[in-house]
Amino acid sequence: MNADAKKTVLRMIPYGLYVLTCDDGKGNISAATVNWVTQTAFAPPLVVVGVKTDSHAYQHIKDSKTFALNMLGKDQKGLAFTFFKPAQVADGEISGQPYKKGMTGAPILTDAPGAVECRVTAVVEQGDHHIIVGEVVEAHLNKPPAGRPDAAILEMKELGDKVFYGG
Amino acid sequence: MNADAKKTVLRMIPYGLYVLTCDDGKGNISAATVNWVTQTAFAPPLVVVGVKTDSHAYQHIKDSKTFALNMLGKDQKGLAFTFFKPAQVADGEISGQPYKKGMTGAPILTDAPGAVECRVTAVVEQGDHHIIVGEVVEAHLNKPPAGRPDAAILEMKELGDKVFYGG
Repeated sequence: MNADAKKTVLRMIPYGLYVLTCDDGKGNISAATVNWVTQTAFAPPLVVVGVKTDSHAYQHIKDSKTFALNMLGKDQKGLAFTFFKPAQVADGEISGQPYKKGMTGAPILTDAPGAVECRVTAVVEQGDHHIIVGEVVEAHLNKPPAGRPDAAILEMKELGDKVFYGG
Repeated sequence: MNADAKKTVLRMIPYGLYVLTCDDGKGNISAATVNWVTQTAFAPPLVVVGVKTDSHAYQHIKDSKTFALNMLGKDQKGLAFTFFKPAQVADGEISGQPYKKGMTGAPILTDAPGAVECRVTAVVEQGDHHIIVGEVVEAHLNKPPAGRPDAAILEMKELGDKVFYGG
């Protein structure tokens, strides 16, 4: 396989940007920018997230079997970079962002346009990131979109000409 | 859970469009437009596809444990609709599209800008679509993109104001 061809073709997959949040129920909160996300079923509503196995988020999700995906809005480019770094919880905020506790316990970023909360139904332990499968059990529409919902999300290609995560 | 909020938030996830192809090794070829796709690992390179369980493609992939994802280009909107319908193989073409046999046996649409071939490493049998996990074993860059690769792919939101598959 030609490594350059593989990289270029895989980078054709378009991605939105999400803050993956979790509360492990033992006082530990994680929040990390991710982009490897897709829905995979309507009934029940399932989503998949690729999560780095050496991350705090991965361990917390394995422990609590819950997580939230907070959709970033077009105007939240700064937050995508903020949550590339380890989350800091202080004064009722995560890395300076207000949040509320969701029904699964996962933090919901109230300034994000929307979020879904999930219960883990499977983990595929393959690769340097594992595949977390979650059933959507709650949804938060903090800011209803004016047009198509998929026109409201911040996309990877908007982070910079040379910014990719994939390939 | 509020069903409308769940639908709207899940529809914030942006999607590209792909023709999922498979040759089951017994003379049966399938080709179907799909959009529930994400990479999930770098090493090895893994991708996930949500595939409808009552589709020909699903059965062929379960049998052969191989598939290809053909990325559709910005100018291939017609093909997205063509492959919403069952594939017709005739005169060395699939539904009028030229193709070649890939190393896994899966048909590679030579007019698509790129394709990856995969071997199935896991199937998560949950929901009305199951989660097919594939390791990328071959890549075809038929038309190198001029700019960012993810600016070259046809996106769901370009199919029409009311066209969605998700929510």
